[in-house]
Amino acid sequence: MTFPAPLTGVVPPVCTPLTPDGEVDVASLHALIDHLVGGGVHGLFVLGSTSETAYLTDRQRALVVTETVRQVGGRLPVLAGAIDLTTPRVLDQVARVTAAGADAVVVTAPFYTRTHPAEIARHFRLVAAASPVPVIAYDIPAAVHSKLPSELVLELAAEGVLAGLKDSSGDQAGFRRVVTGARTHPALTGFSVLTGSEALVDAALAMGADGAVPGLANVDPHGYVRLYRLHRAGDADLARAEQERLCALLGLVGVGDGTRMGGSSAALGAFKAALHLRGVIASPTTAEPQVPLSADEVAQVGKYLAAAGLL
Amino acid sequence: MTFPAPLTGVVPPVCTPLTPDGEVDVASLHALIDHLVGGGVHGLFVLGSTSETAYLTDRQRALVVTETVRQVGGRLPVLAGAIDLTTPRVLDQVARVTAAGADAVVVTAPFYTRTHPAEIARHFRLVAAASPVPVIAYDIPAAVHSKLPSELVLELAAEGVLAGLKDSSGDQAGFRRVVTGARTHPALTGFSVLTGSEALVDAALAMGADGAVPGLANVDPHGYVRLYRLHRAGDADLARAEQERLCALLGLVGVGDGTRMGGSSAALGAFKAALHLRGVIASPTTAEPQVPLSADEVAQVGKYLAAAGLL
Amino acid sequence: MTFPAPLTGVVPPVCTPLTPDGEVDVASLHALIDHLVGGGVHGLFVLGSTSETAYLTDRQRALVVTETVRQVGGRLPVLAGAIDLTTPRVLDQVARVTAAGADAVVVTAPFYTRTHPAEIARHFRLVAAASPVPVIAYDIPAAVHSKLPSELVLELAAEGVLAGLKDSSGDQAGFRRVVTGARTHPALTGFSVLTGSEALVDAALAMGADGAVPGLANVDPHGYVRLYRLHRAGDADLARAEQERLCALLGLVGVGDGTRMGGSSAALGAFKAALHLRGVIASPTTAEPQVPLSADEVAQVGKYLAAAGLL
Amino acid sequence: MTFPAPLTGVVPPVCTPLTPDGEVDVASLHALIDHLVGGGVHGLFVLGSTSETAYLTDRQRALVVTETVRQVGGRLPVLAGAIDLTTPRVLDQVARVTAAGADAVVVTAPFYTRTHPAEIARHFRLVAAASPVPVIAYDIPAAVHSKLPSELVLELAAEGVLAGLKDSSGDQAGFRRVVTGARTHPALTGFSVLTGSEALVDAALAMGADGAVPGLANVDPHGYVRLYRLHRAGDADLARAEQERLCALLGLVGVGDGTRMGGSSAALGAFKAALHLRGVIASPTTAEPQVPLSADEVAQVGKYLAAAGLL
Repeated sequence: MTFPAPLTGVVPPVCTPLTPDGEVDVASLHALIDHLVGGGVHGLFVLGSTSETAYLTDRQRALVVTETVRQVGGRLPVLAGAIDLTTPRVLDQVARVTAAGADAVVVTAPFYTRTHPAEIARHFRLVAAASPVPVIAYDIPAAVHSKLPSELVLELAAEGVLAGLKDSSGDQAGFRRVVTGARTHPALTGFSVLTGSEALVDAALAMGADGAVPGLANVDPHGYVRLYRLHRAGDADLARAEQERLCALLGLVGVGDGTRMGGSSAALGAFKAALHLRGVIASPTTAEPQVPLSADEVAQVGKYLAAAGLL
Repeated sequence: MTFPAPLTGVVPPVCTPLTPDGEVDVASLHALIDHLVGGGVHGLFVLGSTSETAYLTDRQRALVVTETVRQVGGRLPVLAGAIDLTTPRVLDQVARVTAAGADAVVVTAPFYTRTHPAEIARHFRLVAAASPVPVIAYDIPAAVHSKLPSELVLELAAEGVLAGLKDSSGDQAGFRRVVTGARTHPALTGFSVLTGSEALVDAALAMGADGAVPGLANVDPHGYVRLYRLHRAGDADLARAEQERLCALLGLVGVGDGTRMGGSSAALGAFKAALHLRGVIASPTTAEPQVPLSADEVAQVGKYLAAAGLL
Repeated sequence: MTFPAPLTGVVPPVCTPLTPDGEVDVASLHALIDHLVGGGVHGLFVLGSTSETAYLTDRQRALVVTETVRQVGGRLPVLAGAIDLTTPRVLDQVARVTAAGADAVVVTAPFYTRTHPAEIARHFRLVAAASPVPVIAYDIPAAVHSKLPSELVLELAAEGVLAGLKDSSGDQAGFRRVVTGARTHPALTGFSVLTGSEALVDAALAMGADGAVPGLANVDPHGYVRLYRLHRAGDADLARAEQERLCALLGLVGVGDGTRMGGSSAALGAFKAALHLRGVIASPTTAEPQVPLSADEVAQVGKYLAAAGLL
Repeated sequence: MTFPAPLTGVVPPVCTPLTPDGEVDVASLHALIDHLVGGGVHGLFVLGSTSETAYLTDRQRALVVTETVRQVGGRLPVLAGAIDLTTPRVLDQVARVTAAGADAVVVTAPFYTRTHPAEIARHFRLVAAASPVPVIAYDIPAAVHSKLPSELVLELAAEGVLAGLKDSSGDQAGFRRVVTGARTHPALTGFSVLTGSEALVDAALAMGADGAVPGLANVDPHGYVRLYRLHRAGDADLARAEQERLCALLGLVGVGDGTRMGGSSAALGAFKAALHLRGVIASPTTAEPQVPLSADEVAQVGKYLAAAGLL
């Protein structure tokens, strides 16, 4: 499908359901997509951090894109992460996911290697020159250990290198510089500024952001869609109330014991446990080497769902 | 060949010569291998950070291993990095490089994702269980943003999960804990402790380390082999003098302008410029998106070579 | 005066005017206070980071509090930073600034030393037990290199240890957890949650924050007061427009050349240059060892003021 | 006394004994000084990190210097930390400790504030210009969150600004650059390069360092003095064996439970517990807000002492 310019609304980063032995569970992936599309979302982002893309083999990554594109059937744009260490490897990922049907690619700064803003700019220019589809910049310093400077994002947007920004940096002031810059620059009318901060979607929309990519929307797509519609209807108070309900639900990412597991295990394990408890996916399995939630921790996830009226 | 237990001596992390358009330059790779073997080194490590493995596609990585193994012809052990984000992807890399003939694999902690010591342990256990060749742990926090705890390395070594450690952490006190632990634990007689700190090889050997993996040995393999032999001969003062000569040469990694490029561009660009100036490789090209050294910076590399008697 | 519970509104962190030889310029301090009070602010915070408290001697710190309290004459609450490395030294600072008349003290987590949440909690409990005035927690990880956990802030608030939070962490999601927690916990009706993020005051107020401590309010107190009043009047769109005007003005903190000076020199130098250009203070001098702005950089500050209608 | 140029040998950073209610225990301080002088050390460094200087009030700091100078009676040089946030405050500390009799001051880069190498250079130049005694640079990035560049240290040394370096950075390669630079630069014959890395003293001396400032020397001064003498006698193997014995003893800093306390509590608590168990000081009390070791943790300290033959 033609990629919207700008992309707006709620674009969940889709969890990747796995079988207990670590394979992509295609039937559950289809069910999760139906759950999200049925919730009214405006696009899907596969192979992002929430999708456990870091843990999927190239074969699995291609399968996820193929099956998502098939199940969506052109109803919504499908964005795919092309996550790898540097330009030559990212170009291979771009080729792989676009061959599988992705409508846009989502690309981070180089990582593993020590990089520099000049090299980050060069990286995005080379990727965009070779990509058959629009490129969305993915600002995620917690993963890649460098921050995309706001000025660089706007410069690359004005050049036509970038079609949008997915901001998972947590830096709201920098995010606002991009939002305001994109709203005031005539060449950037089609540039999409999306927040990945699940707890701040109302605030991002109020600043003028185009939409959100909230991991928690896997668990409660209806809530984020409602929030987005309330914002569009100009009802800031109800939007905030919906956001606060979602913030309370977001507490589930903290049930995993930090002395026993890392942040990915805790957050992704909780999302998948919630989807399993809600009957959307067949197994809460997360990929190796993540540590699974304990039965007690899963029970706590259930309490969060119950409190949010989702069980 | 049978992998030595322990691996000892000088094991350079081999630069990957590239053509001006970014392809692996196989003829130059062969020439570089001959240069290193002729210098008396004790093993070769391909697809490490110095090899620009972060910038090589999977096809290029396989080609590097195949051609290295072919050119070495069993004279020395060939270690290959299996560098990727997490366990499932690392297992694919292990399969690829061992199919191409690597005698051992070198593996880091998971990166990009937020990890935990329990997950790092699980990662190495799973990789070792699936690998047909010995696994060397690669401690490189500057790249992966977590440090391998000394106690965990020794624990995994005692279990037989790890055959060695390549320490590029810069943490000499932690390195010493592993060296001393490996020397005193009866189950660890075959465990190899190697330093990646080019400026501290004499000190590491004096502490009891088995050897070194110095990037600068691409430029001056004879120097590091001489240093190793002086140490083995018990001549600490001459070993230190040789190390100091190499430390002076190491200054070449700093010629790149930090306001214009990142650390990889500066260090790898300088190694390749030196190899080109010495006539070993056909082009000093580094992979995208690294920024090339300027002509003036290359001239400074030449001055370092001249001062070290290498031109 | 009785300290308000909760403290609300705009509470600028007051710059400390200096003479060219580095002494506190008392006349300029009085003029700055009049400028702020005349702008309609709701309280004053002296000896914070924006006040260059890190650069003031104990004698100078006491002088600043004494002269501020004198000039304010009870019209507004005066908060004073009690910034030092750990508990025993902070207690000395608390004694000093409360003897000089401060109505509340603002205290960070321990720094310089490697600390732990349990020790941070112990620190605030001991400080509060000894302080004759309310204690506001100052969350500023860029300075102290640890983050106050939201749960700990709420726990200490519920115990009566803390009277408020000044959040300069940049972590809006964590800030929101405190705001929402404080609004919903019956024991916390008097607890004040204040943002230090100058570019996000509208968003913070929309979330339910009590007020703001914006360094930029030194330069444009009327703007922040207007923003606060628009919010209170329920006019979110005009509040946002005012915030965007202030965001544009905030660009002045970036005129200092980062290859020549640090972040304190750039930001504090710009604030003082602006106050000097506006005729409020007699000299733009910043304390040693900060690097002064160049004449060209000062001229750029002037352009920001002109664009904001402040010259 | 005249400060030696260069200062060489073992210069312990002296623990500050406290009474159970947190006051300086002068009798125990005298006893600890006698223990160290009796162990053959070559100087004393008070008010460093190991001295809990971060936790001492200015009154207590002055008392420590006065009593140390009194007890030493000119037999050894006494260095005193002048630890504070920036230049003006450090100058006050310099005045205070030199009035109390310190023979040299030890000064870090500015902290709390965001600094820059140009500002660090300015800081040391201003401090040295005002100090009546030699200035030693204290490189401790774990505390101040910036690293002193080797080139800057050598530049300031050549200017006469710095009389020495106490390196607690853990960066042995950078340390070596300073050692080698100081040995080869004719203007630096009196410049003293000291390592603070307790586990690497043999290696530092072998590189050409002048001496060491090991916190563990509080517990076992005889061991470090023996190590130093073995090195001077040219017996590298025995020096290494002594170092390895001390490395084993150093394990006591890890007995404190990291889920319950920070690094200062664990390390300083262990040193003081050891001094108490050895009968040198009257109480193992550490300053607030550090968490005390448990009885079980103290028992583990005792086992380390017993294993090292110190009980």
